[in-house]
Amino acid sequence: MKPTDPTKSQMPAVAHARGLNNPDTSAPQWERLLGLPPRPGMKLQARLREAVVQAILAGQLTPGTALPSSRELCQLLGLSRNTVTAAYQQLIDDGYLQSRLRSGVFVALHARPLAADMALARNDPFRGSQARPDVAPDWSTRVLRSHSTDRSLAKPARWQDYPYPFVYGACDDKNFPLEGFRECCTLTLSRSQLPEWTHDLESADVPQLLEQIRQRVLPARGVFAVPEEILITCGSQHAYSLLSEALFESGTRVGLEDPGHPHARNSLASRAPRLIPIGVDEEGLVVDELPALDYVFVTPSHQSPTTHVMSLERRQWLLRKAELHNFVIIEDDYEAENLYEGTPMPALKSLDQTGRVVYIGSVSKSLSPALRLGYIVASKELIAELRQTRHTMLRHPSAFMQQAYAMYLSLGHHETHARRVNAEMLQRLERVGKALQQHLPEFRFQQPRGGASIWVQAPAHIDSAELALVAQQFGVLIEAGSVFFLQAPTSCPFFRLRVSSIGLNQIEAGIAALARAVKKLEARRLH
Amino acid sequence: MKPTDPTKSQMPAVAHARGLNNPDTSAPQWERLLGLPPRPGMKLQARLREAVVQAILAGQLTPGTALPSSRELCQLLGLSRNTVTAAYQQLIDDGYLQSRLRSGVFVALHARPLAADMALARNDPFRGSQARPDVAPDWSTRVLRSHSTDRSLAKPARWQDYPYPFVYGACDDKNFPLEGFRECCTLTLSRSQLPEWTHDLESADVPQLLEQIRQRVLPARGVFAVPEEILITCGSQHAYSLLSEALFESGTRVGLEDPGHPHARNSLASRAPRLIPIGVDEEGLVVDELPALDYVFVTPSHQSPTTHVMSLERRQWLLRKAELHNFVIIEDDYEAENLYEGTPMPALKSLDQTGRVVYIGSVSKSLSPALRLGYIVASKELIAELRQTRHTMLRHPSAFMQQAYAMYLSLGHHETHARRVNAEMLQRLERVGKALQQHLPEFRFQQPRGGASIWVQAPAHIDSAELALVAQQFGVLIEAGSVFFLQAPTSCPFFRLRVSSIGLNQIEAGIAALARAVKKLEARRLH
Repeated sequence: MKPTDPTKSQMPAVAHARGLNNPDTSAPQWERLLGLPPRPGMKLQARLREAVVQAILAGQLTPGTALPSSRELCQLLGLSRNTVTAAYQQLIDDGYLQSRLRSGVFVALHARPLAADMALARNDPFRGSQARPDVAPDWSTRVLRSHSTDRSLAKPARWQDYPYPFVYGACDDKNFPLEGFRECCTLTLSRSQLPEWTHDLESADVPQLLEQIRQRVLPARGVFAVPEEILITCGSQHAYSLLSEALFESGTRVGLEDPGHPHARNSLASRAPRLIPIGVDEEGLVVDELPALDYVFVTPSHQSPTTHVMSLERRQWLLRKAELHNFVIIEDDYEAENLYEGTPMPALKSLDQTGRVVYIGSVSKSLSPALRLGYIVASKELIAELRQTRHTMLRHPSAFMQQAYAMYLSLGHHETHARRVNAEMLQRLERVGKALQQHLPEFRFQQPRGGASIWVQAPAHIDSAELALVAQQFGVLIEAGSVFFLQAPTSCPFFRLRVSSIGLNQIEAGIAALARAVKKLEARRLH
Repeated sequence: MKPTDPTKSQMPAVAHARGLNNPDTSAPQWERLLGLPPRPGMKLQARLREAVVQAILAGQLTPGTALPSSRELCQLLGLSRNTVTAAYQQLIDDGYLQSRLRSGVFVALHARPLAADMALARNDPFRGSQARPDVAPDWSTRVLRSHSTDRSLAKPARWQDYPYPFVYGACDDKNFPLEGFRECCTLTLSRSQLPEWTHDLESADVPQLLEQIRQRVLPARGVFAVPEEILITCGSQHAYSLLSEALFESGTRVGLEDPGHPHARNSLASRAPRLIPIGVDEEGLVVDELPALDYVFVTPSHQSPTTHVMSLERRQWLLRKAELHNFVIIEDDYEAENLYEGTPMPALKSLDQTGRVVYIGSVSKSLSPALRLGYIVASKELIAELRQTRHTMLRHPSAFMQQAYAMYLSLGHHETHARRVNAEMLQRLERVGKALQQHLPEFRFQQPRGGASIWVQAPAHIDSAELALVAQQFGVLIEAGSVFFLQAPTSCPFFRLRVSSIGLNQIEAGIAALARAVKKLEARRLH
C-alpha cells in the first residue's frame, strides 16, 4: 500500500467532480494535514476529530474529498484502527463526513459554510481592521469612562515564571477537587436534569443553588435567609458593581476601609460616589469618629489587606451607629471560611435585624478564582431591584455553572475541599512567619489567624514600591502597599505577601531572597 | 436484626459521650433521616451521600453519632450493599464520617462548623430580616436607578404550562448535544488541562476560546480578527451594557431600529444616552434620512423583531454614511447562523476597514440561552478599554465555561448542533406560515428566511396587547408588539410568534386556537 496519495488511489474522479481544489499534483499530505494537535488530556480520538474538522473549516479539505481508509490512516498516523473508525463514525454522525457504500469516506457536501470560502478568498484574512486610519473613529475621545489607569493590583507579565511569587493568581491545581467537580458536571448534563437549567432564566437564578446557599453555606456564617433575599453574581467583583450601579451617584457618601481592597474600591467607584477613607486598627474598622455616611464597605471576617478580624464589640458598635445615623453596611465576608484556629466569628449580617447589612459572599473562591460565582444577601426589596439591574447588565450568571455548583454543594464537596485548602494555607502562612522572623527580624507583622496573606510593615525608611522592584530582580514578587490606600502615600513601608500561588517548599528561600533585596536596597540608599 | 435503633444497639455510650442531642427516646429514624432525595439522573450512591451530608449540616446527625452498619442500612433503605459501602467510604475520605475498628462508622468530630450550631440554636432560623421595620433602610429612596419598570418582554408565571407558548424561553432539551458537551466538560476537567484555565485571569480571557472564535466562528461570517480585537462577554446582553458603560453619557446620540430589540434598548440606555428611533423596512434599517448620530445599533442578519435581512446595498450605504458623518455602527449579529436558505450574507463587520463597526456575537445561543457566552469584535484600542471596563464590572466570564466551550468548538460540535437546530426551526416556521394562511388569512407576515420567529401584522383594528390577553385564555402565548417600539403606540397591530419553545406538532392547533381568540376579540368589539 502506498500511503502517499490515498485520495487518488481510491476515487480521484469523484474528488475532482466535487470541485476538489487540491489538484492531483498537490493531493493532501495526510500526515501533515491531520497531524494531531498536542492537546494534553484529550484522547487521541477527539484530537483526530478536531484535526479533521479544522481542516474542513479552514478549506484544506473541500466537500467531496475522499479520505484515506481507516486502515491507511491508522498506519499513516500511528493510531489504532479502533481510534480511527470511532472518530470517522462520530464525524459521519455529525455530518462532516459521508460514507458511500464500497467507495469509502468523503468530506460531506455541506460540511462547511460557503461564507467562509468567500472570505478566505481575500488576500490577508487575519489582518487587523485598521487599514484606513484616516477615517477610523477616535476611540480616545469616545471612551468616556476609561478604567485603564485605575490604581489596581498588577502583576508583571509571565509572573508564573518567577520562583517566589508572593502574589495572588494561581490555583493550586494539585488541590483541585477534579473528581468531585467532574461528577457534578456529568450529573448536571444528564438528560433528566436539563429541564432544571437549560430554559431561559431571564432575571431568575437556579432554585437549587439558592437553596444550597441558604441551607448549607449561610448557616455556617450565622446567616439565615429566604430565597427572595439572595441573588447570584458572577463573583464578588460583580456584586460591588451591581450595588454601585443601583445605589450610588456623585453625591453618595461611601466609607471605605483605608487601607482597603483596591478592586472593591474601583468597582464601587463606577458611579463616581464620594469615597471617604476610614482607618483600620487591630479590631478592624475604627468606628468611634465616623463621618456622615450613606454606605460603608467593610471586610470584617479578615480585613483586606491587614487580615485583622473585627471584634464582636466593634461589630455591635458599627451596627448600632448604622441604625442611629441611617447608613447601610456593605459586608464583604472575605475569606470567611479560611480560618484555621477556633470558631469563625459569625458574619456581621448575622447580627442584623433590619436588612441594614448587605452581605457579599463568594462560593467559588476556595475552588478556583476562575469559576466566578458569588452572591448577595439583602432585604427582599433590594434583591428584587438588583435582579432587574443584573438583568439589564447581563441577565444572569451561567445557569449551567449554577446547577453544577448546587450539585457540588449538595454532595458536600465544598466543605471537604475548603478544609483541605485551609490546612495547606495554614502551613504556608506559618512558614512565612518563621522565615520573616529569621531573615527580616526588623519587619513587623501579625501572624494571621486565617486567610492566605500576611500584611508586613517594613522599617519606615523603606518604600515597598522600590523594594518590590528590587525584589523582582531576585525572583521575588510582593504586593507593594500603596495601592491599598485611597490616597497613594508618597512612601509606603507596608506590603502584602500572599501564599496562594507559592509552594510550601519555596517559601523560606523566597523570604531569604527578599532579605537580600532589602540589603541591596539599603546599600543603594547609603550611597 | 431490629432496624429501629441501630445507634443504640451498636454504641450508645459513645454516642452520648459525644453530646448526641437525640436522646435515646428519639433515636434517629434512619428511613426518614436518610430517605433519598428524589433527584432524577443522580445515582443512588450520590443521593445517599447527599442525604447524609445534609443531615450532618442540619444538625440532625451530631458528631460522634453512630451510623447503621452498611448491612443494616442497605436493608433499611432497600439499596445494594455496594452502594452503601461505596457511599460510606467516600464520606470517610471526605472527612464527614469516621470508621473505628470493630465499632462501626460514626459522624466525624469536626464534620460541622460550630457556627452553624450556634445559629441553629436561635428560634426561627429561616426568618426574613425585617424584624424591626422601624429602623429598616428605606430602599425605595436609596435605589437610584430602578429597572423594575423597564418596558421589557414578559412572560406569565408558569408559562411552560401553556399548551401553545409562541414565546422565547425553553431550550429544546431533546436537541441538546448532551454527549458532546459532557465530553468537553470532562476534557476540561482533566488534570493536564487545569493550568489552562484555573489561574486568575484578571482581565484576560482563555486564549483557546479567542482562537476558536477567530479561526472557526468569525470566518463563517466573513470576519477576520486578531485575538486583541476580541473580548468574551457573558452573552449579548452583557456586550450592550459594557458598550453603554464605556461609551455613552446623557448627551450621546444613539440610533435604534424601531421596532427593535427591547433588551438591547434597556441595556444601551443604562447610561441615559439620547435614544433616537430609526425606521425599518424590508431591506433593514432605513438609511436615507439619518439624523445626526454618534452610534447606531443594528441587527442586519435578521432584524429583531421583523426578521428582515439587511440588503448588501443598504449595508454599504450605512457604512459609507458612518464614515462620512463619523458615527459608529454597533452590529448585533443576531441569529446569524440560523439561516436555512442560501448562503448567509457576511456580517456588516466583514465590510469594515476602519474599526467603525463594533460587532456583537453569541456563541451559546444555539446551544442554550442558559450558558451565557458571547463576544465583541472591535478595534484593539476599544477592546483594550472594554477589558478594563469588564474587569471593574466582574473580572471575566467563567474561565471553566470558556475552556469547555473552546473544546466544544474545536471538536466541531457547534456547527453540527446548529445545523440540527436550524433544520428543526425551519420546519416549525413553515408550519406556522401554513397555519397562519389557513386560519388567519387576513393577517400579514413575511415567511422568514432564518431565525426562530415570525413577525405578524394583524388587521388595523386589532390591538395585539388585547389579543395576547384573550389568546392566553385559549392557552396561546404571543409577544405583543408594543414593547418593541421606542415610543409605545396606543394601539399596535403587530406581534411576534416565536418557535423555539413550541413543538412542531403543537403549532397548527396553537394557530387555530389563536384564530378562535381573534374571533372572540372581534365579537367583543361588535358589542
